[in-house]
Amino acid sequence: MATEQQMKQAMQAYLDTYNRDDLEGIVNLYAEDATVEDPVGKPVMKGRQAIRDFYKYAMTTGARLSLAAPIRGSHGNSAAMAFDVTLTLPPHGKLVIRVIDVMTFTEAGKFSSMRAFWGPGDMEKQA
Amino acid sequence: MATEQQMKQAMQAYLDTYNRDDLEGIVNLYAEDATVEDPVGKPVMKGRQAIRDFYKYAMTTGARLSLAAPIRGSHGNSAAMAFDVTLTLPPHGKLVIRVIDVMTFTEAGKFSSMRAFWGPGDMEKQA
Repeated sequence: MATEQQMKQAMQAYLDTYNRDDLEGIVNLYAEDATVEDPVGKPVMKGRQAIRDFYKYAMTTGARLSLAAPIRGSHGNSAAMAFDVTLTLPPHGKLVIRVIDVMTFTEAGKFSSMRAFWGPGDMEKQA
Repeated sequence: MATEQQMKQAMQAYLDTYNRDDLEGIVNLYAEDATVEDPVGKPVMKGRQAIRDFYKYAMTTGARLSLAAPIRGSHGNSAAMAFDVTLTLPPHGKLVIRVIDVMTFTEAGKFSSMRAFWGPGDMEKQA
């Protein structure tokens, strides 16, 4: 199993890679058959191609991610983090979305799943 | 389905009820056959009696919970929140545990499951 430290480092790498608009870097954090549910309650995407398409679109918004509290580990193969996303989405303009991501990990320390908890009420227009 | 607002209110009620040491109040936030996995990776507890026993013990530590970031909803029957727990645990003394809780909800707005993400590295001794 990946260690707690390895899992937290991968969570931090996710934020850093995203903030560099490094699409392949993000995709490579995921296992080949990983799943993404973003937001939780919407259809689950499966596999690196679907995941690449998802982030490719997401990166067109200029989104930037910043931790809202230290990354949490677990006593199993999971970690979780609360962060804020700032992005620009026509016609809304500048928005903030408050998110908690929960990842599970393969033995090799890749994400096997990502679930993003945010609801309609967690998206706010910025001045 | 419970609304996003109802789910967030139940999350806040969990913190408030806990901070009043209101054991029956906490138990009543859960559905009869709810599950609790705290921390994630340890055995799952099932049903109100097991849940009552768990919180009865937890309350002997004098734990107090404070939000680390606003409560997150979802587009489904889930909500999540990052918070810090301060408690006194002999022989360690005063500790802080950084946690993210993820709850799922019944139609009636009770917790059907709770999973608490925190690892060994998320527990820190306080001065």
